Amino acid sequence: MSEYTDATQEQVNETMQSSSMAFQVYKKKSLRERAHFMRTIASNLDELGDRIVEMAMQETHLAKPRLLSEKNRTVFQLNNYADACENGDWLQVRIDTGDVNRNPPKPDIRKTQVPLGPVVVFGASNFPFAYSTAGGDTACAFAAGCTVVVKAHPAHPKTSFLVAEAIYEACDTCNLPREVFGHIYGAGNEVGKALVMHPETKSVAFTGSFKGGKALFDWGNQREVPIPVFAEMGSVNPVFLLPGKLKESAVDVAKMIASSVTLSVGQFCTNPGIIIGVKNNDLQEFINVLKAEAGKIAPADMLHQGISKAYHEKLENVLKENSIETVLNSNVSRGLQAGPAIAMIEAKTFLENGLFHEEVFGPYSLIVACEDDVAMLAVARSLEGQLTATIMGTGTEMPEYDELVDTLVRNSGRIIFNGVPTGVEVCMAMQHGGPYPATTDARFTAVGADGIRRFSRPVCYQNWHNALLPDELKTGNPLKMWRMVDGQFTKM
Amino acid sequence: MSEYTDATQEQVNETMQSSSMAFQVYKKKSLRERAHFMRTIASNLDELGDRIVEMAMQETHLAKPRLLSEKNRTVFQLNNYADACENGDWLQVRIDTGDVNRNPPKPDIRKTQVPLGPVVVFGASNFPFAYSTAGGDTACAFAAGCTVVVKAHPAHPKTSFLVAEAIYEACDTCNLPREVFGHIYGAGNEVGKALVMHPETKSVAFTGSFKGGKALFDWGNQREVPIPVFAEMGSVNPVFLLPGKLKESAVDVAKMIASSVTLSVGQFCTNPGIIIGVKNNDLQEFINVLKAEAGKIAPADMLHQGISKAYHEKLENVLKENSIETVLNSNVSRGLQAGPAIAMIEAKTFLENGLFHEEVFGPYSLIVACEDDVAMLAVARSLEGQLTATIMGTGTEMPEYDELVDTLVRNSGRIIFNGVPTGVEVCMAMQHGGPYPATTDARFTAVGADGIRRFSRPVCYQNWHNALLPDELKTGNPLKMWRMVDGQFTKM
Repeated sequence: MSEYTDATQEQVNETMQSSSMAFQVYKKKSLRERAHFMRTIASNLDELGDRIVEMAMQETHLAKPRLLSEKNRTVFQLNNYADACENGDWLQVRIDTGDVNRNPPKPDIRKTQVPLGPVVVFGASNFPFAYSTAGGDTACAFAAGCTVVVKAHPAHPKTSFLVAEAIYEACDTCNLPREVFGHIYGAGNEVGKALVMHPETKSVAFTGSFKGGKALFDWGNQREVPIPVFAEMGSVNPVFLLPGKLKESAVDVAKMIASSVTLSVGQFCTNPGIIIGVKNNDLQEFINVLKAEAGKIAPADMLHQGISKAYHEKLENVLKENSIETVLNSNVSRGLQAGPAIAMIEAKTFLENGLFHEEVFGPYSLIVACEDDVAMLAVARSLEGQLTATIMGTGTEMPEYDELVDTLVRNSGRIIFNGVPTGVEVCMAMQHGGPYPATTDARFTAVGADGIRRFSRPVCYQNWHNALLPDELKTGNPLKMWRMVDGQFTKM
Repeated sequence: MSEYTDATQEQVNETMQSSSMAFQVYKKKSLRERAHFMRTIASNLDELGDRIVEMAMQETHLAKPRLLSEKNRTVFQLNNYADACENGDWLQVRIDTGDVNRNPPKPDIRKTQVPLGPVVVFGASNFPFAYSTAGGDTACAFAAGCTVVVKAHPAHPKTSFLVAEAIYEACDTCNLPREVFGHIYGAGNEVGKALVMHPETKSVAFTGSFKGGKALFDWGNQREVPIPVFAEMGSVNPVFLLPGKLKESAVDVAKMIASSVTLSVGQFCTNPGIIIGVKNNDLQEFINVLKAEAGKIAPADMLHQGISKAYHEKLENVLKENSIETVLNSNVSRGLQAGPAIAMIEAKTFLENGLFHEEVFGPYSLIVACEDDVAMLAVARSLEGQLTATIMGTGTEMPEYDELVDTLVRNSGRIIFNGVPTGVEVCMAMQHGGPYPATTDARFTAVGADGIRRFSRPVCYQNWHNALLPDELKTGNPLKMWRMVDGQFTKM
């Protein structure tokens, strides 16, 4: 497919230069204009209808209902972040009015956010819509006033091309230069590195493997002018099964988790990869049901050869350990096909061997069997940074586990009670991002409109003429947004 | 002074381990308890009265009025950030209530901030109170719920010791373990590196030179688990003189700038190091007055040998260039003593030679004389990231300079109209931090209560039991703080 060949260094240079020029235009667009642009992209994407879903099915082997819902989610994200862009809460306006009678006179200071500049977004293989070309990162960057250059994921270039066309059409409709969006192909590391190292690149967003994200992070920090790299990487998303809950409803919990582990052939960054419980009959019942439920799921095609190969190899590697007990292995090492697998290990062994802490991306989960609550807490403490942590418990027993909760808050970005980590709600309160190595910057989120702030920075104006201030800072609040004025939130 | 000898690796280990243990206690303290602790430190510091000011005078050679006002500012900061800690705006609470009737059910998600863990603060030589032991970084970290380990600046160990005592007394008064605060001495790089590389260190704050800040930033990123390093480094703080303003009041502007350049022997990170104007008679008048006013300032002692030596050497190095014209040189290369110097250069030469862009820390400023507005804009565009940029202009001429303003917003964290960059107001709207190399993370501020957020990260709770939620997330808003609930700010 010659049309999707790797970009040359010259093409990267041209694209970034054009993005930088377009940024000078785009950053001056009002919040309303940016929101209109984003809504137009959403509408164009929606209108691509079945055509784009079928293309994505061909390229990703994901099922139609999943892709339809992902497409709808992407449309929702664009519209939701457009609303957030326009209401301006993300600008976090602070106004401290001056006082000439103070000695020394108190200056008038007003703070808002300005966009960082061109953002490079790396498309994710497992989210051809929601975390690729017009996905969450792109939407946040456009909301912040940044231009975007996407490196299409090599596993779905045609889908990416169609989405890019939807963005270009929105540029035309909104009278924006097409260069506000750049689209680059590149299967090798070279193109990615060239994009991150380019002087006009001001920030990077990535969703994918630890190895990939860490490389981008290091490149970003090694530049002459370092830039923020927001990489959302691997996570094993531990699920803790408290004894009371298992006694009450081991069967229901097992069914929930079986479904979460095998959803979309386990290809979610929030896939529950480790399940921790105290050894007893209830845990055994849970395991029996989990085995039966996961065993019903037939092998299916994974996203691409690289991912299926890694799943087969890592699974084989971990299951061949003497200390591990295979509960279920429906995997088939045949091309893209992959089946669910469940294994079990003693807490003691888990604590001693880092191999078992590593993510096996796919429909696999490891049960860590603990002697008691103390061992369960030790397992929690041994975990690295996570996107999510889940507790299955009853209201009655939860107060006894405050140390466990405390540990999970320390290790993760989102903690879930009696639910599953897969299915990340797009809302303001969402935190999708956790301590390293889950992400490279736990202070920001990749899901929800708060993610816009990854691509902006504060600037304050001191004693500035009111007429020359950005609208959001003007006296009288012409944009009617929430602002903190002299310490109080107000729309006045 | 054997009591201020460099800490050993073992002492660093012990201090960080103790800080980590104390963090487990301190992070659970309520906002009110943290605020009470901070106010107690403020009160203890205030009560040290003249004793500590005289100690600082001996160690820093700064004048008494300056140190008195800096001490008061530090007390104010602690109280101001204590208020901010308690009112909880910095937690940026977002609540999205659930809906079980939606298909799939919408979860209840509630987001708050949690502290990162032990913060290492490097005391600044030029702010023995406000950016050292109990300064802004320490106050922000305590507000966020972090413990703090300060590396005392070797130029004022005794002052640092007295302030540390005030903090330890506050620990006793507030029934907190003394280990919430650690105090380490270390003149060499080794101690600093050991502190940054220690696994229990979760964040770093620094105010000082580019070289020092960049080293910490690199170490922070090279750790097995990278951590955020907030380094506030050098800046030349350009001042742009628009022609109309100079025509109207060249004398007043020159007097203001002369005072700002020479304040505290020029030892501020916001010292105006570059002054840009269009060549004409008004600029000449400005230069004459600036020369006369700065010439009245007698040489005075700088902070320490390292700083005075660097000033003498850098000044000599830049003034010996053929292309530069020395307007005033009252400097004396004698021990700690340093006097003001003003030089002038053509814009063309400035643009060609990076040497002139570099900060010369001390009472020195370089006038960049431009042929016209176009050259002035070119100079603005050539500048690296800055903490501040200033425009001296009239209301009438400002609209003609929107491209200049646009460029300065792009390059800096704070833009000032008809004022001087020195004198950083402590308030919510302040942004003290700018694009690299002014700081290592322009998305945060080192002054004002928004600086608390450098030391926290978001965590969200999904479908959590109300009674088990942190108070700030509970239904009914028991802390009565501003929260965003379903997209609207409310105190309900």
